[in-house]
Amino acid sequence: MDPFKFQADNRLLFGRWNYIIMKELLSGPKRYSDIKRTLPITGTALTDRLRLFEAENLIMRRLYPEMPIRVEYALTDKGEALRPIVEAFERWISHYNEG
Amino acid sequence: MDPFKFQADNRLLFGRWNYIIMKELLSGPKRYSDIKRTLPITGTALTDRLRLFEAENLIMRRLYPEMPIRVEYALTDKGEALRPIVEAFERWISHYNEG
Repeated sequence: MDPFKFQADNRLLFGRWNYIIMKELLSGPKRYSDIKRTLPITGTALTDRLRLFEAENLIMRRLYPEMPIRVEYALTDKGEALRPIVEAFERWISHYNEG
Repeated sequence: MDPFKFQADNRLLFGRWNYIIMKELLSGPKRYSDIKRTLPITGTALTDRLRLFEAENLIMRRLYPEMPIRVEYALTDKGEALRPIVEAFERWISHYNEG
């Protein structure tokens, strides 16, 4: 495993705020505004991350033909496969850090 | 869960190079030089991280009364409890990224 290639994967899930975005989407498809509300980051920063997640095939964007158009973000299979890792890490945090 | 408190835990395991140091120690106690050899970071950067891990009770330092003194770093129970998370993340990486 090339440690540098790894760094990209590592930061994809666990980079600054990325983990929180993933957790939001693990609780179901979300609109941009739903995700934005949970994070103290700029719209640009969130848009960049969502584009990165999409490029890495972790999430997909769904357009609903409504007026105005509704856009939702949802996890792909690859994104959904992170669930056990995130849940295990959450258990570790609550067991060791909030005990 | 306070997202800012969370950021500290998150970066503890998955920050820059921290994950690779943890993986080294998951394969058994290591001497400083053993860990240093696997990472393209300065001695100071490694020492800082090991001190942080120690302060967060993820690792412990063992001194062996030899001449010269031998120092080894090993995981604590809290550090060892990260094993399933690291192993699950490794499986995810190899399944989705190197397939």
